[in-house]
Amino acid sequence: MAGKTATNPKKRAEPSTSSKVSKQKNTNGKASKSASAGAKKAKPSGDEQHTIGGYLIDRLQAYGVDDVFGIPGDFVLNFYGMLEESPIRVVGTTREDNAGYAADAYARVHGLGAVCVTYCVGGLSLCNSIAGAFAEKSPVVVISGAPGVDERTSDPLLHHRVRDFDTQRQVFEKITVANASLDDPLTAFREIDRCLEAAVRYKRPVFLELPRDRVETKALYPHVPLSRTHPSDAAALSEALDEAAEMIAGASQPVILAGVETHRFGLREPVLEFAERNSIPVCSTLLGKSVVSEKHPLYLGVYEGAMGRASVREYVEGSDCVILLGCFMTDINLGIYTARLDPGRCVYATSEKLRISHHHFHDVELSDFVSGLAEADLKMKKRKLPKNEGSPLDSYEISPDANVTVRQLFGRINAMLDEKMVVVADVGDSLFGSVDLSIHQHTEFLSPAYYTSMGFAVPASVGVQVADRSLRPLVLVGDGAFQMTGQELSTSLKLGFNPIVVVLNNHGYTTERFLQEGPFNDIPDWAYHRMPDLLGGGWGFEIRTEGELDQALKAAMANEDAFSILNVHLKPDDVSPALTRLAERMSKQV
Amino acid sequence: MAGKTATNPKKRAEPSTSSKVSKQKNTNGKASKSASAGAKKAKPSGDEQHTIGGYLIDRLQAYGVDDVFGIPGDFVLNFYGMLEESPIRVVGTTREDNAGYAADAYARVHGLGAVCVTYCVGGLSLCNSIAGAFAEKSPVVVISGAPGVDERTSDPLLHHRVRDFDTQRQVFEKITVANASLDDPLTAFREIDRCLEAAVRYKRPVFLELPRDRVETKALYPHVPLSRTHPSDAAALSEALDEAAEMIAGASQPVILAGVETHRFGLREPVLEFAERNSIPVCSTLLGKSVVSEKHPLYLGVYEGAMGRASVREYVEGSDCVILLGCFMTDINLGIYTARLDPGRCVYATSEKLRISHHHFHDVELSDFVSGLAEADLKMKKRKLPKNEGSPLDSYEISPDANVTVRQLFGRINAMLDEKMVVVADVGDSLFGSVDLSIHQHTEFLSPAYYTSMGFAVPASVGVQVADRSLRPLVLVGDGAFQMTGQELSTSLKLGFNPIVVVLNNHGYTTERFLQEGPFNDIPDWAYHRMPDLLGGGWGFEIRTEGELDQALKAAMANEDAFSILNVHLKPDDVSPALTRLAERMSKQV
Repeated sequence: MAGKTATNPKKRAEPSTSSKVSKQKNTNGKASKSASAGAKKAKPSGDEQHTIGGYLIDRLQAYGVDDVFGIPGDFVLNFYGMLEESPIRVVGTTREDNAGYAADAYARVHGLGAVCVTYCVGGLSLCNSIAGAFAEKSPVVVISGAPGVDERTSDPLLHHRVRDFDTQRQVFEKITVANASLDDPLTAFREIDRCLEAAVRYKRPVFLELPRDRVETKALYPHVPLSRTHPSDAAALSEALDEAAEMIAGASQPVILAGVETHRFGLREPVLEFAERNSIPVCSTLLGKSVVSEKHPLYLGVYEGAMGRASVREYVEGSDCVILLGCFMTDINLGIYTARLDPGRCVYATSEKLRISHHHFHDVELSDFVSGLAEADLKMKKRKLPKNEGSPLDSYEISPDANVTVRQLFGRINAMLDEKMVVVADVGDSLFGSVDLSIHQHTEFLSPAYYTSMGFAVPASVGVQVADRSLRPLVLVGDGAFQMTGQELSTSLKLGFNPIVVVLNNHGYTTERFLQEGPFNDIPDWAYHRMPDLLGGGWGFEIRTEGELDQALKAAMANEDAFSILNVHLKPDDVSPALTRLAERMSKQV
Repeated sequence: MAGKTATNPKKRAEPSTSSKVSKQKNTNGKASKSASAGAKKAKPSGDEQHTIGGYLIDRLQAYGVDDVFGIPGDFVLNFYGMLEESPIRVVGTTREDNAGYAADAYARVHGLGAVCVTYCVGGLSLCNSIAGAFAEKSPVVVISGAPGVDERTSDPLLHHRVRDFDTQRQVFEKITVANASLDDPLTAFREIDRCLEAAVRYKRPVFLELPRDRVETKALYPHVPLSRTHPSDAAALSEALDEAAEMIAGASQPVILAGVETHRFGLREPVLEFAERNSIPVCSTLLGKSVVSEKHPLYLGVYEGAMGRASVREYVEGSDCVILLGCFMTDINLGIYTARLDPGRCVYATSEKLRISHHHFHDVELSDFVSGLAEADLKMKKRKLPKNEGSPLDSYEISPDANVTVRQLFGRINAMLDEKMVVVADVGDSLFGSVDLSIHQHTEFLSPAYYTSMGFAVPASVGVQVADRSLRPLVLVGDGAFQMTGQELSTSLKLGFNPIVVVLNNHGYTTERFLQEGPFNDIPDWAYHRMPDLLGGGWGFEIRTEGELDQALKAAMANEDAFSILNVHLKPDDVSPALTRLAERMSKQV
């Protein structure tokens, strides 16, 4: 089907270190990595060869996009034909929103993702997955076909039209960081540059609408791809670094809280350098879980207020200098605002904001600030360092005849994680229970931990393996979420992928039962292990006891050729300790 | 699960004739039915008993909404609890967009539909189905939960949030006819009135966002439900009727083209009265197919330009007076603009526009105009009337050992239609092939024939049976569309419904193969007949020959207890004659 092979996808898993990145000096002399990511030169388009469609494909490749997800439709078919003839691989999915989730996951692994669909019926089906990518800062380029400009003259009611021809673009304006209609060859090339640059700079989705009669339209004038850098204000950066250095050096219990932007902006290495050079312990947030390896000696655990482990909480909240790097201060991320962090004792740096104690600094790039910290010569106080205690799940012991509980399920999974395994967790207890899993490598935990949209995980696992076939997804998904998007296993099967999908089958929306019980929380009990019968491939297992779980996971590991799906029966009221704590908190807020 | 039974749903299938409708006289003395549909009085809400949530539920019931589709989430849970305690039945679905399709179909059968979901992850998943309802004028009330107003004070990053707290509402502003945030008890009651009235008046979706801390908030002042009528301008109406009467009476070959608004605005009876009293033949459009019974002696067939049957086309295009009543002039509806209708020979009346020859009239209600026509005493010319030739499919004969073709499939289905069977057609050849089916009763054909969103049919069949359990859906769906939303059979099973689902399995997006062939048109071949194994109920059939088809459909008719699904293998290049003609037209436009 989609027969082309992605060319060495792993090499672009972190845009900042990829060969596509030209490191440029900014005014402060520091390497500014994020600003110019992917700025490989494309040939000028004014040479009578570049069409709007062709230029878009060239620029996507220049930014390292090797694969595009989506479903064709008549308003985008000629662009699909053009994609098919390019080196970019087209990956068809069962549904458009699933293409969006896959592209989001691909972006998280690969640096930038793309999805291509038809007008309105395709694009508007993407709203939720693209909104999630916006919320969680995952850069996805949405390309939609559209009726030809020349077809619109008499304002006809063409199929797929909702209100005005511009309605779809207006909707995406609300959930993307930049958007454009490529309807005019005078502006289209510049608009492509602007939107792609915005996606990479802000790590947010962008939207491009391409009328079908403009795909082959050529540039009117020679066009040179836009390339801009975004240097920090040198004086502000310098002052901020001095203040931070003084605060950190004077602290007796400093701690780093590394958030998801550490990964998105390719800052894992300077963050680690900063931590290691100064012997500062590191925690992560839930959304940023695994941005540094959880086996690292300086790693303490996930900090999430009352939801997290007590030892981590006490260390962070007892700190006299919390250095938050690229963290979103979201509710679930921070244990539904049970976190107790005094701004007066914080260095808070994100791509949008820099605050040291109560001083706000403007025009300082996150990457410059983090690199500056890594290179600073701090005279740290002598301190006693805490140990990486590992996971409470590390003490897992099997009771073969016992019915599987959530706690034992996660214990067994924790025991099987290795360096090639990516945990992809859907929302609900699949996410909360995952907190204690010990992830070996950085960025091997993917979850919509802020936007928390059900149904992310199965299609996301497709995106992971399209981005890097050598990774093996371990998918944790509730029964409700599986019913939403589980059909995407069809695409895994088509492409010869081998995710291990664990369905936490507790007959309903268990997270909600704690807040308000009612029949609306019950859902039908599918025979999830029969998916292979429907799809014509894969391996299914039905599981009630720990012994069956053990056997099935061993078999799944051995089944390299296709997906495995485990239907794990759990009691509707059996949940992880983290969820119990969370649900108690949330019920107090309703 | 959703244990309550809808109370006599059939009685509200046509809002204009339901007991909820108070017919009020307008200035012209004619009955104005649509303007006041559902204006049953609710008790004033200022009596210290009405809360915002309670008033919304009361008003939905007053408008005849007995059932609400959706999926709960924490921001809407307390309103779900309130719904569960009301007489309204809550129907859970597998996905939010499917809830939207079901509510759309429910609205088409029942007069008004509703869907209730959580903030952003729920609402934004509805965008495509609600956009379809907007495009095709199906009134659906979208209710979304939202973070509490008091939770928003410090602008926190609560989960499910995309950009601003208002982002979801801004998106829905683009795809609904009215919207409101019910965040203030001073305005919320009025806003509920305004939005529900707009849904009924314009037959379009509306959007209401209900912050979770406002569900129980009481009215500040006594509130009386808003009730407005929309009378026609009496002089304009009178002049328009006179001109129309003169044009029609003088014609030697007048013909009525009855569109979907005939059904939406409850005008089937006056349209038939007008046709019968004056012996004027009636055609329908594709979107309006079956607004009058296709067995009626005056019925000629579906008019859709070059795509339709030659005899119908010749009669309509040879007419010297085409009376278009409630037709959308859309592309697919009219055979991708192969229709040849001279405005100078047309009476064109819709809910938005009235044009007689080149005279435009403003402020004339469609219902008043149609009623006026029905009551007018026209002195018609003597004419020879054409016969209802029936369907070309009526001559179906079985060849038991032959492989099933699309033509024979529709022939066999045509032979089994009866008065309780509703044909629900998805897009592609499921729709085009259905053109020639002979529908016995009015409004027993449902399809997204204008917006043409794949995946409508299976969830829509749930909406049909929730609205009227005595109807039996015959669902025609392509394999691509089934892969998008077929899991909604789970809800049919849960509720004991018995649709017969025919999957036209041709291994891909056949409609597109004609426009641009490529590997992106291929999709995996599922064993659709194994759905019962996954879901734990229902009947599955795999079909290759006409004999197997015949046997399976007989068995499906006899299986009254659950859904039946037929996996009908077809060749990827085998299509209906109508699709061949359409694809040829469309390929010329790309």
